[in-house]
Amino acid sequence: MAYWIWFPHDFSIDLRGRVEMRRQEHGMTCPSIWRMDAPSRAVAFRRAYTLDAPGRARLFSQGEAYVCIDGASIPDRAQEIALPAGSHVLTVSVMSLTSLPALYLEGDVETDGSFFACENNVDFVPCGWSPAFCAPGKRPMDYCLPTRPLSPAGRTEEGLIDFGREVFGFLHLTSAAPGAYTVYYGESAAEALAGKQGETWDAGAFLRAGEEIRLPSRAMRFVRVDGPADLSAAWLEEEYNGLPWRAAFSCEDERLNAIYGVSARTMELCTREFFLDGIKRDRWVWAGDALQSVLINHYSYLDRATTRRTLAALRGRDPFNQHINTILDYTFYWMIAVWEDYFYTGDPSFLAGMYEKMVSAMDYTLRFTSADGFVVGQKRDWVFVDWADMRKEGELCVEQVLLWKALRVLADSAAVLGKAADAAAYAARAGALRDRILAVFWSEEKGTLLHQRVDGKVQGHTRYAPLFALLYGLLPADKARLATENTLLSDAAPAITTPYMRFYEMDALLRAGRTREVLEGVRAYWGGMLDLGATSIWEQFDPNETGGEHYAMYGRPFGRSLCHCWGAGPVYLCGRHILGVAPTAPGYAQYEVRPNPGDLRRVEGAVPTPDGSLSVRIEDGRVRVSSTCRGEGVLLWQGQRAPLPPCEGTEPVVVEL
Amino acid sequence: MAYWIWFPHDFSIDLRGRVEMRRQEHGMTCPSIWRMDAPSRAVAFRRAYTLDAPGRARLFSQGEAYVCIDGASIPDRAQEIALPAGSHVLTVSVMSLTSLPALYLEGDVETDGSFFACENNVDFVPCGWSPAFCAPGKRPMDYCLPTRPLSPAGRTEEGLIDFGREVFGFLHLTSAAPGAYTVYYGESAAEALAGKQGETWDAGAFLRAGEEIRLPSRAMRFVRVDGPADLSAAWLEEEYNGLPWRAAFSCEDERLNAIYGVSARTMELCTREFFLDGIKRDRWVWAGDALQSVLINHYSYLDRATTRRTLAALRGRDPFNQHINTILDYTFYWMIAVWEDYFYTGDPSFLAGMYEKMVSAMDYTLRFTSADGFVVGQKRDWVFVDWADMRKEGELCVEQVLLWKALRVLADSAAVLGKAADAAAYAARAGALRDRILAVFWSEEKGTLLHQRVDGKVQGHTRYAPLFALLYGLLPADKARLATENTLLSDAAPAITTPYMRFYEMDALLRAGRTREVLEGVRAYWGGMLDLGATSIWEQFDPNETGGEHYAMYGRPFGRSLCHCWGAGPVYLCGRHILGVAPTAPGYAQYEVRPNPGDLRRVEGAVPTPDGSLSVRIEDGRVRVSSTCRGEGVLLWQGQRAPLPPCEGTEPVVVEL
Repeated sequence: MAYWIWFPHDFSIDLRGRVEMRRQEHGMTCPSIWRMDAPSRAVAFRRAYTLDAPGRARLFSQGEAYVCIDGASIPDRAQEIALPAGSHVLTVSVMSLTSLPALYLEGDVETDGSFFACENNVDFVPCGWSPAFCAPGKRPMDYCLPTRPLSPAGRTEEGLIDFGREVFGFLHLTSAAPGAYTVYYGESAAEALAGKQGETWDAGAFLRAGEEIRLPSRAMRFVRVDGPADLSAAWLEEEYNGLPWRAAFSCEDERLNAIYGVSARTMELCTREFFLDGIKRDRWVWAGDALQSVLINHYSYLDRATTRRTLAALRGRDPFNQHINTILDYTFYWMIAVWEDYFYTGDPSFLAGMYEKMVSAMDYTLRFTSADGFVVGQKRDWVFVDWADMRKEGELCVEQVLLWKALRVLADSAAVLGKAADAAAYAARAGALRDRILAVFWSEEKGTLLHQRVDGKVQGHTRYAPLFALLYGLLPADKARLATENTLLSDAAPAITTPYMRFYEMDALLRAGRTREVLEGVRAYWGGMLDLGATSIWEQFDPNETGGEHYAMYGRPFGRSLCHCWGAGPVYLCGRHILGVAPTAPGYAQYEVRPNPGDLRRVEGAVPTPDGSLSVRIEDGRVRVSSTCRGEGVLLWQGQRAPLPPCEGTEPVVVEL
Repeated sequence: MAYWIWFPHDFSIDLRGRVEMRRQEHGMTCPSIWRMDAPSRAVAFRRAYTLDAPGRARLFSQGEAYVCIDGASIPDRAQEIALPAGSHVLTVSVMSLTSLPALYLEGDVETDGSFFACENNVDFVPCGWSPAFCAPGKRPMDYCLPTRPLSPAGRTEEGLIDFGREVFGFLHLTSAAPGAYTVYYGESAAEALAGKQGETWDAGAFLRAGEEIRLPSRAMRFVRVDGPADLSAAWLEEEYNGLPWRAAFSCEDERLNAIYGVSARTMELCTREFFLDGIKRDRWVWAGDALQSVLINHYSYLDRATTRRTLAALRGRDPFNQHINTILDYTFYWMIAVWEDYFYTGDPSFLAGMYEKMVSAMDYTLRFTSADGFVVGQKRDWVFVDWADMRKEGELCVEQVLLWKALRVLADSAAVLGKAADAAAYAARAGALRDRILAVFWSEEKGTLLHQRVDGKVQGHTRYAPLFALLYGLLPADKARLATENTLLSDAAPAITTPYMRFYEMDALLRAGRTREVLEGVRAYWGGMLDLGATSIWEQFDPNETGGEHYAMYGRPFGRSLCHCWGAGPVYLCGRHILGVAPTAPGYAQYEVRPNPGDLRRVEGAVPTPDGSLSVRIEDGRVRVSSTCRGEGVLLWQGQRAPLPPCEGTEPVVVEL
């Protein structure tokens, strides 16, 4: 079987540029605020082969190809390469100034992951490839998501086209007469009606009656068309990700079921070429958002291709001379996400490809540390943490906690990859940092981690540092108990108002067994959006706002995204905590099912594993697990414990307690 | 006046890719063996402006543009930007996936060198621009060299088209009938006759009689056409550099005049978008060749644009993770060339733009040094030095001498740019290295620098280390005298056989006052090529070879380049040493004229300076200098000394001794 091959990660890096170029805002293409890397323009692909008899290979390339056998060029650029018998080294160099250099050979030597790639004649590394590009005509440069036709659900009183829910795709319009048109898209009816106060529109002209035009891909629920279009003929060429949703959740609480459904829809819409933050405005790849998408992906698609495209694109090419997305915290989230991919899939190949890139990113990060080894936001860094009022100067405790976790990720990654010296060094650095974090930021008086140190003064109380310290296990048991009580369950620190940080807060609360509180919060907060008609989860939600206030952000009346993936957290929470499914060794080689339904009496759901799935049903105080997972699991339920043996055939293993 | 602007050096980096993609060898596009960098895909251009009244600017871009005033996007992508009155910051971001992102604004704010450019939202640096791109329609992406028609000089007995001398351009053929054709190019008649044994050919088909086709640009003197072409209608669209040749040289020795002429022609042919090594085979930018072209350029075009395009392209983008052209020595030559550009033009702007890039290249280099601070070729490095039999393992003395000179260049560059601490650090490192070179490699027994140290043993005697040590002034006077005698003027070390290293050897001999020996060598070696009919200087010449041996190299019968710029050294030698013109302060602010005509009795010539030129005439034992240079010079002649005052008007200053 032959596949197109390229310089590793360059497909993702190139695709990211193409996807980010599609962001339009107020009628202009909106450039990314970070360095937009291009793929290598010239790549040599190499493999040794042995043939008993002379053979041949047919060559296809994106770019100009140059063929050498044992280092000598063959004097021919015919599509068919003659391969001498015996053991030889075949090298094909491909150059392109305008597209990803890529190669496809079929015949007696075929391109696949066994080839090595090099951009400088020296450093050969395993090439990049994907099962998606498995024929001469299935070229990487032609990659796009599938589409399908979708008719509008109806028309609003004001004459807007209404798709009934948030959708994404290419609007098709048919003209009733020649003339100029402007199409205004709205995630809300108000936005579509607001004309150029909204975020996205397309303008052009019909040349003749009956002409059908295909507009660029946009997010929308409502559409207003100014101009001579026949609205009855309008339809959407809906672009979708084509991935199977491998999870399920339902319970006796229909509100919770609806929240799961709308969260799943949000995840679906934001899972495209990459895990995008949202589909209307940025359509960008952000590491903070991506980590949450990766976590949600564990409990929905478990699709490693989208995860890896996303994470490779985020890191980009060298040099690493600025934090990912320009944000200090996002470099840490990126590293954590790389580890998450490994831990849930059990496949170290991507981790291996990213390891040196993590090391160089950490080297860069550690260049800007204080005497205590604390990372300090530089003038060139965006210290983000959350959309919330908070002081961010000096040493922020939450950034140290994230740095500690990232160092742990590097130590664990090094260990997986057999780099014992690295593993020990990172573990030692992490240990020392943990000691300093506890020594400096732990307040005996308040019984929690404080917010920051400025000019030697430790001050402030926010939820962020205790939250991540609890989530990632930085705190010893006694301090964990105190921090849960004094921060998470207390009103002493300001409440969190973004779905983004609520995700982690709920995760931490669920780990602390606070299922009832979390479910109440989900019903109120996510349910509050549904009560306002949300068909996907918003970037931000404040129940105290009214009317148009819900749509405004960044000083723009419709700046807020109404389909933002960091709001899809309930998908993760249901799978991870309500159903209670989690690997305890990489790739579900070992796992546990520890359901935690809180006040729910009947719950039914499923979670994907790399080689099967786990169905969990809770009813009448009993739990039943049906597994097609090849790993060894354990079911934990109300103090009881039952092994979940590996599923070895096609029949699921069923265990009840 | 408005100009197109871009991210600094990206025009050169992008152009290099386009030029290198034109190399064809045996019918295939031949990829570079180094990393081929792409320009940044997204660049923000920024400038503060103040307007008394509202203004406007017309926008042209290569790529998609996004306009902000004071950080807020303007809701419009019209070609005309409305500029509010008062003081504001205008930012225009430009993104392109397929061409250099570039911007042109004309109106009340115009793009020029006062804009800053940034690829990551943080690090704004002075933008790149060129006076060549000064109108909306003169776009960087359309850049190409001028062309002019050239008719063949005649036809050879074998039916080859003969242009009479080496030429470069696009061959135009007219068909006599439909049918396939193959066009074989030859720098020699033998090559054109050799079919696919030669280096370059083009194949295709005429569709109808009378069709005129334009073939890709190629180097040639002779052309063989197989196919139904009407050879009487063939002509060349000659591509030339369009630069004025600002130097002259003639003397009573016609052989020397002819050598100067053919050398000048070689320089002309190899001075294209960049200083290329040769025009037939590589058509590539190599730093070793480029340094010599830069030196020759001082005494011919004094064109800073070609120099800077060449040097910026050679360095490429970060990370610096391999030596320039993969060759250890070439990183040093590149740094020396950057300094040469500054020293002869007096304009520090390019030096300033390259300084950090030199520092990072030096950081990389110094990562691979031995306990003595000696650089050692790594497995990933090509240790080139010269096409000659020599041992290259361990610590090579010549590489240490070049490293020392590069450290001196960095120290001097830092001083020019006001970086005193850097200057001191590099000077100290250079000083320590010089001490170690003398301590380890100087042989009291042989009275010269030895070749290498392997496993603690200093051994071998070649010309390279003493040569560069003399040229760059590493040796104290007594040792310089010994090394000249024991290496340069001795047969103890193997003779140099490439024009490449002969260039430096002659330079060193001339500095030691050995004009007669050098002139004899030039007459024999360069004259030897002319005797064989050369119309441009060859990559290599061995007088002992005969017939087709002169054309072979790299194991290929016509692998040798017959137009190779490193052979154009006589242009430099005549201006620098025979006429004796050299700046003694940057940009000819101070200079000397120290003619050294050897056995020549009548010499007349001219050398360009940044703001004028220096004409030197030697006859009957007297010398006369006519200067339009604004700097202060001194004429040194047979123990006499006369000031050459600055030329202040339009009349040249004339001084005789």
